[in-house]
Amino acid sequence: MKETLYVIKIGGNIIDDEVKLSSFLKQFAELFGSNSQYPFRGRGLLIHGGGKLATKLAAELGVEQQMVEGRRITDAETLKIVTMVYAGYINKNIVAELQSYQCNAIGLTGADGNIIKAHKRNTNSPLGVGGIDYGFVGDVDEVNTNVLTSLIDQNIAVVLAPITHDESGQLLNTNADTIAQETAKALSKHYNVQLIYSFEKSGVLMNAEDDNSVIASINPTSYQQLRENNIIFAGMIPKLDNAFAALQSGVEKVIIGKAEQLHSLITGSAGTSIVHE
Amino acid sequence: MKETLYVIKIGGNIIDDEVKLSSFLKQFAELFGSNSQYPFRGRGLLIHGGGKLATKLAAELGVEQQMVEGRRITDAETLKIVTMVYAGYINKNIVAELQSYQCNAIGLTGADGNIIKAHKRNTNSPLGVGGIDYGFVGDVDEVNTNVLTSLIDQNIAVVLAPITHDESGQLLNTNADTIAQETAKALSKHYNVQLIYSFEKSGVLMNAEDDNSVIASINPTSYQQLRENNIIFAGMIPKLDNAFAALQSGVEKVIIGKAEQLHSLITGSAGTSIVHE
Repeated sequence: MKETLYVIKIGGNIIDDEVKLSSFLKQFAELFGSNSQYPFRGRGLLIHGGGKLATKLAAELGVEQQMVEGRRITDAETLKIVTMVYAGYINKNIVAELQSYQCNAIGLTGADGNIIKAHKRNTNSPLGVGGIDYGFVGDVDEVNTNVLTSLIDQNIAVVLAPITHDESGQLLNTNADTIAQETAKALSKHYNVQLIYSFEKSGVLMNAEDDNSVIASINPTSYQQLRENNIIFAGMIPKLDNAFAALQSGVEKVIIGKAEQLHSLITGSAGTSIVHE
Repeated sequence: MKETLYVIKIGGNIIDDEVKLSSFLKQFAELFGSNSQYPFRGRGLLIHGGGKLATKLAAELGVEQQMVEGRRITDAETLKIVTMVYAGYINKNIVAELQSYQCNAIGLTGADGNIIKAHKRNTNSPLGVGGIDYGFVGDVDEVNTNVLTSLIDQNIAVVLAPITHDESGQLLNTNADTIAQETAKALSKHYNVQLIYSFEKSGVLMNAEDDNSVIASINPTSYQQLRENNIIFAGMIPKLDNAFAALQSGVEKVIIGKAEQLHSLITGSAGTSIVHE
């Protein structure tokens, strides 16, 4: 029987807030660390970004940042900055803090162990706005699971920074949501994967103004109805489309909610679960 | 029988020179990559620093750097810089370049997998100048070899950045020569370790002015004579004392020479070998 693995993407609002980040990492260590009371030791894989800190460093260095529909145009100087901030500063501080809570962790990028092969996004890619050159931005081709499973099976939690490579020596800045999804899909061959997307809200809401109106569960049928009634719209649609695509590719469950409620997201008492029928 | 493992410290002069670094990494991949004609696949462990790039970034950010006898005083801002530069920019670019030469590699710090536990240097430590607070500088307590041996035995070359942690969440800037030595010593339980220190000269020289006057081999007896005759002096003495200490702790051989001559250093046709009697 396959064991359960939790692939957890933490949102930028957590990375930028030391108190929230510590609260999240403590819960992560309680669940997946060496003193865990759950059968999950090492079975948590964390994916982080860190856009605001990268933007701050770029400003300090006078490197102008260009965004197109929320996506960063990554020139050579910006690639250097995101590599330093994501793979260096944020990744290593998360690992050191997890170690202090007795959770053995290892911080990696997609270049390490050739875990994630990507290619530089074409200007005509459907993933970008047409005709825009995103620079050193990578779209994922393949996730190699052998290094990941070897570490997980040694009870070591993996912390992934959103940097990939093209196997020709080029590092590439890659969307952390996409990395979470592709990694979750690939690891579904080895584990029952639950994919958790944390963001600033408590889940998918019936009423966007009311953080207590969380919809506990959404399946394809209810998703159809929620869209028809305009309860789910705008930015939530691609998130949920991606969640259902992950289910189609072998992921067992997708959970959307607040990182600070990690315990409750896993036990099912908080957040929105996206499920098959 | 134990297999041979090469622990290789590359000097700052290589890191700062793209052409020299590429030449070194190509040789490293030929020796330790998946197309290696030697029985060394994955049996190379690389340790790098990157001081000059850190100094450059600090200047760009207006963070003043203080050095005492060549050692960097590491305040909080400087720790952030070295973590970004060493563990982020340099480490991940080396890994990506090795991948492009068909050498599977993984880049880590001492915090990852709890590989190297250290403590913040005391002001009265014999490793520093008395009475100086070096800030977030770490002295190594312990190297845990299980994650390293697991990766090496999967034929994955490990690339170590000189950042450690104290198990309480604090990252620490740590001398790369020391990391090379302590890692080599700890791994001697599992492998026949050859420790290579690369620097800007071809080896230990009979005549400091003549780069062709390399002393091929030094043992404790000849070391004594070379010191008495003032052929070895100043900065070379601590290097060689450390080399002999490594031999005392289980390392099979220490080799000193140019990183660009890696092949020849390993086959014994270049550099200085420091050996037992």
